[in-house]
Amino acid sequence: MTVDVERALAEVLPAEAVVTDPDVLAAHRRDQAEWAPSGMPRVLVRPASTSEVQAVLRVATALRVPVVPRGAGSGLSGGANASDGCIVLSLMRMNRILEVDRRGLLAVVQPGALNGAVKAAAAEQGLWYAPDPASWEFSSIGGNLATNAGGLCCVKYGVTGDAVLGLEAVLADGTVVRTGGRTVKNVAGYDLTRLFIGSEGTLGVLTEATLRLRPRPPKATTLVAAFPTLISAGTAVCDIMERSRPSVLELMDRTTVRAVEDWKPMGLDVTAEALLIARSDAGGVQGEEELALMVAASERAGATTVMSTADETEGEGELLMGARRFAFPALEQRGATLLDDVGVPVVRIPELLAAVERIAQEHGVLIGTFGHAGDGNMHPTVVFDRKDPAALARAKEAFDAILHAALALGGTITGEHGVGSLKRGFLAAQLGPETLRLHRAIKGALDPLGLLNPGKVL
Amino acid sequence: MTVDVERALAEVLPAEAVVTDPDVLAAHRRDQAEWAPSGMPRVLVRPASTSEVQAVLRVATALRVPVVPRGAGSGLSGGANASDGCIVLSLMRMNRILEVDRRGLLAVVQPGALNGAVKAAAAEQGLWYAPDPASWEFSSIGGNLATNAGGLCCVKYGVTGDAVLGLEAVLADGTVVRTGGRTVKNVAGYDLTRLFIGSEGTLGVLTEATLRLRPRPPKATTLVAAFPTLISAGTAVCDIMERSRPSVLELMDRTTVRAVEDWKPMGLDVTAEALLIARSDAGGVQGEEELALMVAASERAGATTVMSTADETEGEGELLMGARRFAFPALEQRGATLLDDVGVPVVRIPELLAAVERIAQEHGVLIGTFGHAGDGNMHPTVVFDRKDPAALARAKEAFDAILHAALALGGTITGEHGVGSLKRGFLAAQLGPETLRLHRAIKGALDPLGLLNPGKVL
Repeated sequence: MTVDVERALAEVLPAEAVVTDPDVLAAHRRDQAEWAPSGMPRVLVRPASTSEVQAVLRVATALRVPVVPRGAGSGLSGGANASDGCIVLSLMRMNRILEVDRRGLLAVVQPGALNGAVKAAAAEQGLWYAPDPASWEFSSIGGNLATNAGGLCCVKYGVTGDAVLGLEAVLADGTVVRTGGRTVKNVAGYDLTRLFIGSEGTLGVLTEATLRLRPRPPKATTLVAAFPTLISAGTAVCDIMERSRPSVLELMDRTTVRAVEDWKPMGLDVTAEALLIARSDAGGVQGEEELALMVAASERAGATTVMSTADETEGEGELLMGARRFAFPALEQRGATLLDDVGVPVVRIPELLAAVERIAQEHGVLIGTFGHAGDGNMHPTVVFDRKDPAALARAKEAFDAILHAALALGGTITGEHGVGSLKRGFLAAQLGPETLRLHRAIKGALDPLGLLNPGKVL
Repeated sequence: MTVDVERALAEVLPAEAVVTDPDVLAAHRRDQAEWAPSGMPRVLVRPASTSEVQAVLRVATALRVPVVPRGAGSGLSGGANASDGCIVLSLMRMNRILEVDRRGLLAVVQPGALNGAVKAAAAEQGLWYAPDPASWEFSSIGGNLATNAGGLCCVKYGVTGDAVLGLEAVLADGTVVRTGGRTVKNVAGYDLTRLFIGSEGTLGVLTEATLRLRPRPPKATTLVAAFPTLISAGTAVCDIMERSRPSVLELMDRTTVRAVEDWKPMGLDVTAEALLIARSDAGGVQGEEELALMVAASERAGATTVMSTADETEGEGELLMGARRFAFPALEQRGATLLDDVGVPVVRIPELLAAVERIAQEHGVLIGTFGHAGDGNMHPTVVFDRKDPAALARAKEAFDAILHAALALGGTITGEHGVGSLKRGFLAAQLGPETLRLHRAIKGALDPLGLLNPGKVL
């Protein structure tokens, strides 16, 4: 069977596009979700065009071989992890930026283009591609689309899906479909663009995207505020969201602040229960007004210290943002990590953080929480001793308990990283049997043989 | 059969929810698309709860009777038009606003609530429900969701779908599903919320929506600029979009300007080829700066006259906006109308307007075009003599020619009104056979018996 598959692929693809070297296969069997299961692919294919993707999927359909699509491998939920004997389909050779239309405020790109490359191409024309997952320098647009990736900018500018006008996708049977287009508004037929976005490669292989660009926003004003209680930080978040449009509104809990301060001392208040980092990119006087408003909201909510800087001093603003950027690497200094990704209604962030603290105590693990407060999307990060198998077991239990806590607060098991293979056991708990059945019906309609990324999401 | 259906419905619904009075049925057989075909329903049901909607759909499935869901009947594409012998399912008794969560910036509403009622409920809490189709005072949220309705605010705040966090829907077989939730970000499973939005009642009956609210924006600054050519107006639109974030950016062509000026003289430049109306709601100094920037862009593009007013004088701003608000009623003074709804990439608006002028000449009809320039979403409105059957035939030909023109410019046959029954013959031309087949596969997965709003969209 393996020989058949390899031979069939070799017949329809150039030699360099079919790889069976065991070392290369091993390097393509997983993403960054260290603890999610992965198998060994039988072959890696690296198509260079939509028609080569079609050829791969026709072979896969003819021979009933599962296909695991893959971008840069920076995913955090095992969504790109191989199953034993699958074809891994890397889109990384399809990395061209086909067009940047400055006047039309859009770009047409292939899935293997890195997010950072799209940002750079837009910037060359004086424009901005907004979506900014933390991985933007090394994650691919295709992967961003597959997970509907978020980031810091979402609180004002939305998620990846909000920046997509149209897609080209290849279905499991090799059919090429195009969705959306180049218009901003379009209600001709079902919103298949959004159906593919966030479907983690289970409904089709994305081969091209038309992305929306924006004028570059002005330089941002920045504040960092320390709060004596979770409740007071939560109050400030709600007040800021109710009165202004922050371009960034991030939170770090005490454990995370201490990890940052221990690793990169920058004078953060380590006695605070929570730190908020907020920015306004309204620009000029308006940016200063929004900053003043956010400072006032923080003080009214009971902030013990507030540091702020207006847009004239971008260096200082970047320094304050550094506290947030160091959050995850600082926690990694403490040990091995399980990075979670849950969302709750913004008003319930204090309850989530309190629940996470309880979970840390109950399971005897350290959990640092940081994330996108303005969206209610938090990343509780379980830290444990890599050499201790019992600690890993406790960490995994804590990870799962966090998912249950988010659901109990009316939240979601994933805000921006995706379900992948890591969280598929929890999807039913969130969706319920009827909505899950509807997912299966749609999966069956698009991929009746179940060949696309099996064992992911559903 | 009719008796069976009526009896079965009477068994599961209260008496007042089952209506067979011929006059009432006649009043529920169509929406506002005067020229789209409609049949005579056998019965009208007016459920008051999700479980009553379930009961209706179970009867429909058991007896294989088509169901046409219906909101306020303000649609413009015949999407709510009855087919002969169908059950018309009115959602207008399910019109409660279940919750306004001021701190959480959301509202939970039933589908029969009017858009204006949701706006009012949000305003009571100092908040804003952004989506503003022209019909906002008399269209229902359910209808807005079914068509993914647009409006003037879209250029800055997005379409209806951008304001939806979650839905409850009843499938054809009576299954209740819930999609999304109360979180801003959520990638747990497929984006079924967006799949239902814009599906015009063909995939499920929406019974509840969780809507996103926003802080109220500041008062807007306003400008009206007259342009000697379509090209110069198009240049101004692109320059404004590239440099600022207008909260309104509307266009009216010469025919429309003249119709407005004839009906409600307000000193508009009737020699201009196009008029732009733009607003900024950035507020304060920023709002004035954006206004100055838009004025400069208009003058640079060659505007012959520019009138503008800052936010201090809201009355004058509303006066200038009146020119746009009068566009359609002014054209209606000229005769019967066929209101079209097409979208093109913003850079191609001048070409679309030129094509529409050619079409008007070729078919011997008057066409006034106005619409949402910042989104490329235009409403060419064919005006003709109602008493002349030949004129109606020519108007319909012109209407269809406009759709072809939009497609030839890389556009869409509908930007915000929906496909309904009016444009279903054109969907294949836009989507192509493969993407259309995928639509049918999804329709088949959700509604295998084809009972929900048959003959619409697909």
